[in-house]
Amino acid sequence: MIDEYKAYVEQIIEEYLPQSDGAFSRLNEAMRYSVCLGGKRIRPILMKLAYEAVGATGNIDAYMCAIEFVHTYSLIHDDLPAMDNDDLRRGKPTNHIQFDEATAILAGDGLLTYAFEVMFADMTKEDVDPAKVIAGGILASAAGVNGMVAGQMLDIQSEGKDIDIETLDLIHLNKTGALLCAATKMGAVLGYGNSQEVAALEAYGMYIGKVFQIVDDILDETGEVEQLGKPINSDIENGKITYTRYYTSQECYEIATKLTDKAIKCLDRVDGDTEMLESIAKMLINRRK
Amino acid sequence: MIDEYKAYVEQIIEEYLPQSDGAFSRLNEAMRYSVCLGGKRIRPILMKLAYEAVGATGNIDAYMCAIEFVHTYSLIHDDLPAMDNDDLRRGKPTNHIQFDEATAILAGDGLLTYAFEVMFADMTKEDVDPAKVIAGGILASAAGVNGMVAGQMLDIQSEGKDIDIETLDLIHLNKTGALLCAATKMGAVLGYGNSQEVAALEAYGMYIGKVFQIVDDILDETGEVEQLGKPINSDIENGKITYTRYYTSQECYEIATKLTDKAIKCLDRVDGDTEMLESIAKMLINRRK
Repeated sequence: MIDEYKAYVEQIIEEYLPQSDGAFSRLNEAMRYSVCLGGKRIRPILMKLAYEAVGATGNIDAYMCAIEFVHTYSLIHDDLPAMDNDDLRRGKPTNHIQFDEATAILAGDGLLTYAFEVMFADMTKEDVDPAKVIAGGILASAAGVNGMVAGQMLDIQSEGKDIDIETLDLIHLNKTGALLCAATKMGAVLGYGNSQEVAALEAYGMYIGKVFQIVDDILDETGEVEQLGKPINSDIENGKITYTRYYTSQECYEIATKLTDKAIKCLDRVDGDTEMLESIAKMLINRRK
Repeated sequence: MIDEYKAYVEQIIEEYLPQSDGAFSRLNEAMRYSVCLGGKRIRPILMKLAYEAVGATGNIDAYMCAIEFVHTYSLIHDDLPAMDNDDLRRGKPTNHIQFDEATAILAGDGLLTYAFEVMFADMTKEDVDPAKVIAGGILASAAGVNGMVAGQMLDIQSEGKDIDIETLDLIHLNKTGALLCAATKMGAVLGYGNSQEVAALEAYGMYIGKVFQIVDDILDETGEVEQLGKPINSDIENGKITYTRYYTSQECYEIATKLTDKAIKCLDRVDGDTEMLESIAKMLINRRK
């Protein structure tokens, strides 16, 4: 079932990406390269599932694409030489290796801006849907200076430093958590869920976001390069503190299990079908790549 | 009079910028550094003047700040080593020199995202103003892959190449023109101008945008470093073709004069007071820095 959602996401991002022709072909190709490099598509899938869980059945393709474009831009910029300096992403050359650094910076800028373009630029004064405007605002907040960008800055600043667990949590919460949380919240808002449902799905997103990052940290230490598609120990080699600095893998999984239970508990407060959201929570803690 | 508008812009960007305290202080400081480095503030001033020219009197501070934040982000990223590699901007160290490259990339990302946050994140379902949503969409389009980012990519790709005048015009139109054009169009839309006024103010923005760039090219060749705040001949040293490759300074000014006349002519189609917009058009062609 999740595979069907993933296939759907692959299809719509293909449709929404700008065409690679004419004078701007290099920019468009570079954007397309990273967006189409694969990935779990977890953010748009979560958005759609939250949307359906509150009983909505319409089309939120533009918003699903927007969050995936924002996520991809963040990966392109994170991989840059001045940032994490990674050559591999999902087993393929990162954007600045495949193209060059200037192109990678601009492809990231382009994807971030394009996310807002697909959400807002097609609206006319007559068809403005307030829920869509709120959803766009949620994405801007989550991606920005009180969210993802802030988390990335703090992550870079913390390299080589023996940061405490609170700081590590703050990095996780912003760098990864904010966007996952935005995914479910946007879905609930777009589907006109009631305030209890919006809050519950937002909390669900927050909990699984944290699980996602804890498991990422464990895999960075113990995973295999073929499965991960990126070098293992890359965080540690970049002088980054991870969860495994404070807890054994066993303890990490215990924490993640408690958070997963909390996430699933949140779903009780949502009226519609939440079975797949429950599956995803379980899948995230059990993932091996 | 224009000085009063400029002072007003300085005041509101100061208010709108995130505070520089707590865990995220470095990011906020870097954003503030570049936004507060000075500049003509021409985009927010144009937006406000277009807004007033169609008879509106409300508050569009968030939108004026948003376009200035987008402009500043583009300068920060343009100055990066992988792009134009400039050390000076307005006579001061560029962002990556004052801070570091990673911080400059993130400060740019932060400002771009924050622009959309200030436009959308404070709206509630009850107070969504369709004109504001349309204005946000205009900014996203102008800044993005069919506008400013595309122009910057084409500019970088054209370095060291003997491009034709059509390609140079395409670079200008997108890299500089799109945002200036968006400024007046957004003002007209936010002020609920009629379709004739919106079109006229958009065309005005397009013409002065082109003048702006032609004069920039002349100044890059003939200006003085103290006045410009950046090294003269920096475009030429970067292997970039400018207008002076095709025309003498005299001819450039003749072209710019014709475009300025066209810009001013557009203002006839706007009902309200357009005196200052006319002054700005004349000021742009006569500027020496």
